[in-house]
Amino acid sequence: MADVMNVKVERLLINYKTLEDFKKFQAYGNQEESMLRDLENNIVENDSESPFYGIYIGNTLVARMSLYKRSKKYDHYFDPPQDYLVLWKLEVLPPYRNRGFGRKMVEFAKSFNLPIKTNPYIEASEFWEKMGFKAASYYLERDFGENPYIWMPEGVKEAEQ
Amino acid sequence: MADVMNVKVERLLINYKTLEDFKKFQAYGNQEESMLRDLENNIVENDSESPFYGIYIGNTLVARMSLYKRSKKYDHYFDPPQDYLVLWKLEVLPPYRNRGFGRKMVEFAKSFNLPIKTNPYIEASEFWEKMGFKAASYYLERDFGENPYIWMPEGVKEAEQ
Repeated sequence: MADVMNVKVERLLINYKTLEDFKKFQAYGNQEESMLRDLENNIVENDSESPFYGIYIGNTLVARMSLYKRSKKYDHYFDPPQDYLVLWKLEVLPPYRNRGFGRKMVEFAKSFNLPIKTNPYIEASEFWEKMGFKAASYYLERDFGENPYIWMPEGVKEAEQ
Repeated sequence: MADVMNVKVERLLINYKTLEDFKKFQAYGNQEESMLRDLENNIVENDSESPFYGIYIGNTLVARMSLYKRSKKYDHYFDPPQDYLVLWKLEVLPPYRNRGFGRKMVEFAKSFNLPIKTNPYIEASEFWEKMGFKAASYYLERDFGENPYIWMPEGVKEAEQ
């Protein structure tokens, strides 16, 4: 079986195969629906780059995450305010879990050396702590309904509200 | 059967009955989990006010929504920037649909006369348009993964990015 040393994280392309692959993941929602609609209506070109990254084993997408940069303008988490990455929908398909693929995805995200914010399910908090993330201080108005976890590269601090 | 004229929207209290009622709604997630945890750990008092509103028919919670105020500081949607309401998780239980309860909840939210932002499933867009909401201009960095709809009282405009 393919091993974490031999796989790479790659940017996913928007096409019908990717969208079909996405259906195997639990967190299928608005984002995927609108991607499909845009493709069908030729608003996005086939094989254009998506804001998703993933790991393929052969032809099978076994892990994915959404990762996109938000500008400083929208930053309420870091000090000084700066561009940061929003990591979303990290998910490894069940038969491929516990083999380091999730960690590999997170390390890939960290490699941009920008602060990262994610919003995991409460049950996944332990995983994120192992990945070096910490629970952001909870500010009701900013965070209501979220469970924000953040990671900061050297020299970045958490913002106070 | 109770009619929309005879019901009222009320603020929900945090207690075990409310949390049990919430289980009947589809959008059960982090928010409810952490409310339960806080109640169990005595971090919130029994019967304290929650950021949810709902409609009871007799003893049954038939509709609910989360509605909370975000300060101007976090406003990237309206011009001039101002305090606004985030409306979330509006849901009417299936046997009670198509009787005006959803509209009643939205009218209640509008009665504060603050701008409102919501993030409906794409399939629900038509409902929100009927409620006088409009799709916000889509800015990838601000809105990625969302389908933002907004409503503005007199004198408020949509912010340009």
